Amino acid sequence: MNRRNLLTLLGLGATAMTLPQPSSALPANEEDAQAILDLVTAYESAWNTSDLDVMGALYTEDIHWVNVKGMHWQGFGAVDKAHRVYFDMMFRGTRQDLEEIESITPVAPGVVIAVVRWLHGPFTAPSGDKVPAMNTRMTLVLTKASGHWKIAHGANIEVDAGAARFDPVNGAAMKG
Amino acid sequence: MNRRNLLTLLGLGATAMTLPQPSSALPANEEDAQAILDLVTAYESAWNTSDLDVMGALYTEDIHWVNVKGMHWQGFGAVDKAHRVYFDMMFRGTRQDLEEIESITPVAPGVVIAVVRWLHGPFTAPSGDKVPAMNTRMTLVLTKASGHWKIAHGANIEVDAGAARFDPVNGAAMKG
Repeated sequence: MNRRNLLTLLGLGATAMTLPQPSSALPANEEDAQAILDLVTAYESAWNTSDLDVMGALYTEDIHWVNVKGMHWQGFGAVDKAHRVYFDMMFRGTRQDLEEIESITPVAPGVVIAVVRWLHGPFTAPSGDKVPAMNTRMTLVLTKASGHWKIAHGANIEVDAGAARFDPVNGAAMKG
Repeated sequence: MNRRNLLTLLGLGATAMTLPQPSSALPANEEDAQAILDLVTAYESAWNTSDLDVMGALYTEDIHWVNVKGMHWQGFGAVDKAHRVYFDMMFRGTRQDLEEIESITPVAPGVVIAVVRWLHGPFTAPSGDKVPAMNTRMTLVLTKASGHWKIAHGANIEVDAGAARFDPVNGAAMKG
């Protein structure tokens, strides 16, 4: 995602006036916009270099994470441990590439909710099964404290490409 | 979930002092605690009576929703439409029962993130397939505006019961 698209997403770009503005949208400034983009790309980079120290530095102390299998990890220690175990087990050297920051929704001063679409590369599960590449949509609640944006919550959902055709709002089969 | 457990979850109960308190937890009062419980149970009731008007009244104007298939609906109109289509298609008369509010994490004044576990009853998909009952974990970002708590974001993930045994933090197979 380029900078102009990000600013547009946050209602700061040149085309902002032509976009519908939700009634509760709060002002965001370019510095916050850049910091939010930097946070998401730092997460991407941490994944793709399998650097769990860098990844952990992006978490708040009371981060919660619900992973793609519906596991719920509560607090920094649990979220950090679970990711380290899974990187050791199957994710080290795999890729998770940012396809799009689909939305950034401010909900309070210093709190935004981003929905991000990833392309999760293929990997081998502990069972030996080869898991093909998949898209996921991740909800990230990002909070600003002491001038720094961090990840307060993640919830990651595998995109069912077959079902997506019949999405009542966005599905190709529902529009044709 | 009973009231005492909810208050404990929010750090207001008698056992609160024995629980680890996240550093960034903000004070919550009993009135907010009750309102948050009421909101989650109102959502449950709206589902179980297939009342999409009641459900929609719980949404903020700029709600986003990522459903269990990874579809991303942006704004009240899209979230409301998609749910109405799916209730007409397959969910009317089905049940989604609250098993547990697993966590309520305050992230800013008037903003909490709840993780809620549901038992989603069986239903028949448009394909004719019988879908058995499943657990889901739903992230709900709840915001307070003009004195009312509403749902600003939902992200719902099917719990993979097989994978759950190998959860690095909570899995039975990892503890034995």
